[in-house]
Amino acid sequence: MILPAPLTGVIPPVCTPLTPDREVDAPSLLRLVDHLVEAGVDALFVLGSSSEAAFLTDGQRRLVVETVVAHVGGQLPVLAGAIDMTTPRVLDHVRAVTAAGAAAVVVTAPFYARTHPAEIARHFRLVAADSPVPVVAYDIPAAVHTKLPTDVVLELAADRTICALKDSSGDLAAFRSVVSGARARPSLTGFGVLTGSEVVVDAAMAVGADGVVPGLANVDPHGYVRLHDLCRAADRDAARAEQERLCALFGMVGVGDPTRMGPSSSALGAFKAALHLRGIIACPATAAPQIPLSEAEVERVGKYLAAAGLL
Amino acid sequence: MILPAPLTGVIPPVCTPLTPDREVDAPSLLRLVDHLVEAGVDALFVLGSSSEAAFLTDGQRRLVVETVVAHVGGQLPVLAGAIDMTTPRVLDHVRAVTAAGAAAVVVTAPFYARTHPAEIARHFRLVAADSPVPVVAYDIPAAVHTKLPTDVVLELAADRTICALKDSSGDLAAFRSVVSGARARPSLTGFGVLTGSEVVVDAAMAVGADGVVPGLANVDPHGYVRLHDLCRAADRDAARAEQERLCALFGMVGVGDPTRMGPSSSALGAFKAALHLRGIIACPATAAPQIPLSEAEVERVGKYLAAAGLL
Amino acid sequence: MILPAPLTGVIPPVCTPLTPDREVDAPSLLRLVDHLVEAGVDALFVLGSSSEAAFLTDGQRRLVVETVVAHVGGQLPVLAGAIDMTTPRVLDHVRAVTAAGAAAVVVTAPFYARTHPAEIARHFRLVAADSPVPVVAYDIPAAVHTKLPTDVVLELAADRTICALKDSSGDLAAFRSVVSGARARPSLTGFGVLTGSEVVVDAAMAVGADGVVPGLANVDPHGYVRLHDLCRAADRDAARAEQERLCALFGMVGVGDPTRMGPSSSALGAFKAALHLRGIIACPATAAPQIPLSEAEVERVGKYLAAAGLL
Amino acid sequence: MILPAPLTGVIPPVCTPLTPDREVDAPSLLRLVDHLVEAGVDALFVLGSSSEAAFLTDGQRRLVVETVVAHVGGQLPVLAGAIDMTTPRVLDHVRAVTAAGAAAVVVTAPFYARTHPAEIARHFRLVAADSPVPVVAYDIPAAVHTKLPTDVVLELAADRTICALKDSSGDLAAFRSVVSGARARPSLTGFGVLTGSEVVVDAAMAVGADGVVPGLANVDPHGYVRLHDLCRAADRDAARAEQERLCALFGMVGVGDPTRMGPSSSALGAFKAALHLRGIIACPATAAPQIPLSEAEVERVGKYLAAAGLL
Repeated sequence: MILPAPLTGVIPPVCTPLTPDREVDAPSLLRLVDHLVEAGVDALFVLGSSSEAAFLTDGQRRLVVETVVAHVGGQLPVLAGAIDMTTPRVLDHVRAVTAAGAAAVVVTAPFYARTHPAEIARHFRLVAADSPVPVVAYDIPAAVHTKLPTDVVLELAADRTICALKDSSGDLAAFRSVVSGARARPSLTGFGVLTGSEVVVDAAMAVGADGVVPGLANVDPHGYVRLHDLCRAADRDAARAEQERLCALFGMVGVGDPTRMGPSSSALGAFKAALHLRGIIACPATAAPQIPLSEAEVERVGKYLAAAGLL
Repeated sequence: MILPAPLTGVIPPVCTPLTPDREVDAPSLLRLVDHLVEAGVDALFVLGSSSEAAFLTDGQRRLVVETVVAHVGGQLPVLAGAIDMTTPRVLDHVRAVTAAGAAAVVVTAPFYARTHPAEIARHFRLVAADSPVPVVAYDIPAAVHTKLPTDVVLELAADRTICALKDSSGDLAAFRSVVSGARARPSLTGFGVLTGSEVVVDAAMAVGADGVVPGLANVDPHGYVRLHDLCRAADRDAARAEQERLCALFGMVGVGDPTRMGPSSSALGAFKAALHLRGIIACPATAAPQIPLSEAEVERVGKYLAAAGLL
Repeated sequence: MILPAPLTGVIPPVCTPLTPDREVDAPSLLRLVDHLVEAGVDALFVLGSSSEAAFLTDGQRRLVVETVVAHVGGQLPVLAGAIDMTTPRVLDHVRAVTAAGAAAVVVTAPFYARTHPAEIARHFRLVAADSPVPVVAYDIPAAVHTKLPTDVVLELAADRTICALKDSSGDLAAFRSVVSGARARPSLTGFGVLTGSEVVVDAAMAVGADGVVPGLANVDPHGYVRLHDLCRAADRDAARAEQERLCALFGMVGVGDPTRMGPSSSALGAFKAALHLRGIIACPATAAPQIPLSEAEVERVGKYLAAAGLL
Repeated sequence: MILPAPLTGVIPPVCTPLTPDREVDAPSLLRLVDHLVEAGVDALFVLGSSSEAAFLTDGQRRLVVETVVAHVGGQLPVLAGAIDMTTPRVLDHVRAVTAAGAAAVVVTAPFYARTHPAEIARHFRLVAADSPVPVVAYDIPAAVHTKLPTDVVLELAADRTICALKDSSGDLAAFRSVVSGARARPSLTGFGVLTGSEVVVDAAMAVGADGVVPGLANVDPHGYVRLHDLCRAADRDAARAEQERLCALFGMVGVGDPTRMGPSSSALGAFKAALHLRGIIACPATAAPQIPLSEAEVERVGKYLAAAGLL
């Protein structure tokens, strides 16, 4: 499947439903994919942070890509994360996910090893040189503990090392500097700038985002498709109202008791609880060592869904 | 090979020599192992940070463990890192390295995913439950961006989840609190507290360390064996003199130009350049995306060796 | 001067012109104030970060407030920073700046001392209890190394401890959560939410900001007044165009060589160089220990001004 | 009072007793000073972090220095902190504390403003140029969020900008590199290297510290004098035993409930509760916005004292 240039639209980072014994639940995964595709999303991103890629074994990762690609066939592009510490390990994932049919790979800066910007640039160049499909740079400082510098992103975009940026940094000023830099240079035509935010999609679109990759789109894909369309139509007041409804829904990520669990257990636990409550996946389990939500916490997820008109 | 309890002595984190095309150079690896064993080290730790574990593919990791275990046979224990982001991925490495003969696995806190202390404890418990060999906790905040809390370490030690701590945090106060906590509880008899420092080994031994895991021991294992023995013999002035000689040698980790490369390229590059200059390994290459040292930088490594009487 | 509730509009954080021997240059300060007032700004904020409050002695701080208040009389409100480490020291500044005529005080979370959110809340409560004028909370994690939590801000707003938030965190998602929280609660009517950003003012206004406090408004107050008015008029495409012009101008903050100086020397140096080049202040000096821009760097500031049509 | 070169021995950072209404309690302060002097300490350090300098107003700071200097007369040197954000503000404190009789000033890197190493060096040079007494560099990254680089410290020591380093970084490896660097250069003869640690004093002395500045010495000055003398006498096993007793006592800093207060409220609250329980100061109050210890927490402080043989 050829990737559009630039990447645009709503591209959910697909959750990975698990069985109670923490294996990939393929039937639930396919129901989730159908739920997203039917809502009108433009592409799918598997093996990202919302997919619990950091928690999936190589076997599970492969199964996810194969399952999703086989199911959506050529209907829409499937991007796959190749999330690992350094170049050689990332390249192994690139080989695996492209063999399984991924249309693009999504790659972060190196982590665990501490790196210089020159090493980050080299990392992307080496990955791109060996990847049979386009590379999307994934800027996620909360996970990898470095921020992709704007000048590095623009340099890698200019020489076609990367075809797009997925920005989960939460830094709209830096996001805008990439958008402006990309627009100012003819050599960057076709470079896609995507936001990973759930809650400032309208703002990111207003400053020039090409597309959006919100984890919450698992729970409410229709909402994000609507929001994206309203932004495209420049109906900004309606966009803002829809965004604010989704912001309220996003409050669910805070249901987990912070004295008992980390933000990932709470947020991914809430997304999965919501998908379970909505009848889309069979089991809300998250991968180890995440801590399950309590019954009361799940109940609060239900209230968020009800308030947003989703239950 | 049964692990001593507690783990003690000098346990070098073995560098992984690579060929010019970045494959594991098994003959050089064996020469390096011989060099370490002949110097009188007590155990070997493969696939740690100094081994570039973060940069090695799964295939390369397996090859390293198999090669080293086959070579040293039952002479001394081989500990192996099982370095990955979360429990399920770590467990895959545990299976791989124990199948290859590792006598213990060395495991960090989860990374990439942000975790709560309760999740860190759960991670170690789940890994230990499924590991056929003892688990060593590896505290390396510079890499994983959390510090193992003293109370978590002592709790995991008390219920025999972990058999030892390798502390690369640089925080001697916290190190001492683990040592004191371990000594104060009969249930922790046999728990080993190891320092990952190159430069305060004498101090760590003086506060009660059981053993030392210094990356620089690749370059000068005789020095660290001597230092360890002097510390054991409570000949603290001689220990301090030897330590200071090793501190001066350790200056080599700063040869790399910080405007061109990160600390890992510089430090591991220097260790490998030193091993190459000493004729132990065939090629000083480090794994991608690390940046090679320049000729002038390698020359400075040579000067450090000469000043320490090693060239 | 009674403060409007909520605080709205363009409120420049007024630079503090210095003489070559680093004393407050009152005539230049008054020319700068006139330049801002004539451009139509809504209030003035002295002794903020852009004012180099961290570098001014108590005597200089007092002189700045007295000079500006005496000059603008009752024309428009003068807010003054009371920037110091903890409650007792902040209260001394509150007394000084209100004696000098400040209409409101702007207060950060404690710094140097490490604090718990409960201590941050207590700090604002104690300051407000003793302040004769309203208190604006100043969220500037880059300086104080904690972020004001949304729930703390809303709680302090609800009990009238603070009358407004100046958010210089760069985190638009958190900013929006304050805006939404404030709008959802009748008890918060009149609470002002101000952005300290230079480069996402249009986005902040679109999500509901009441006003803007951009350091760059020293250099181009007309631009920010225009931008603010376009945002108010919901002419978002024109707002975006004006914002992008200002973003390009803001590039000047990067003129300083990062191998020679920190971000403050570069950014404040550029603002002052621009004010000097525009003939508004007599001397571009910044306070010690900041490093002056080189001639070539000042020349680049001139090019930014020229490109923005300001020279 | 002439300062010895190098500074050596036990130099307690003197707590500042407060009355219930948070004014300086001069009689208690003098009792505390007597308690320290009688125990045999070598100098006194007022207005440091343990003195709550960050919480004291300028008037209170002045009163503290005047009170202590007048009392100890020429018996032993009184060092005073000049803790503030930047050079001009620090210089105002330098003038105040030297007018009040301080024999040396203790100065941190700039904070609040973000600074480059070149600006840090310039800061110390400008302060030293205007200070009538020697300058001690205070390395306290937990408060100022930068670590003084070893090369900057050695450079400032070499040109006599600073006469000593007080290292509260907790990084013994960096501490040792300063000690070794100082010993290796004849130009640094007389430069003092002091540790701010409570719990690794024996280790710091073993690597070459000239003196120690432990906050806990307020509570048990005899212990630290004994420990220092044992270290000087190279009776390292006895030193270690005394250090371990003091480490156990230091556990008191954790009595405060971390869900209710920050580390400063807990640690300084515990020191003052201990001084109150020992009958040395009249009131255990800490400055705002710190949170008082509960009765149960104070009771736990008492248990620490009892266990250490101090009650």
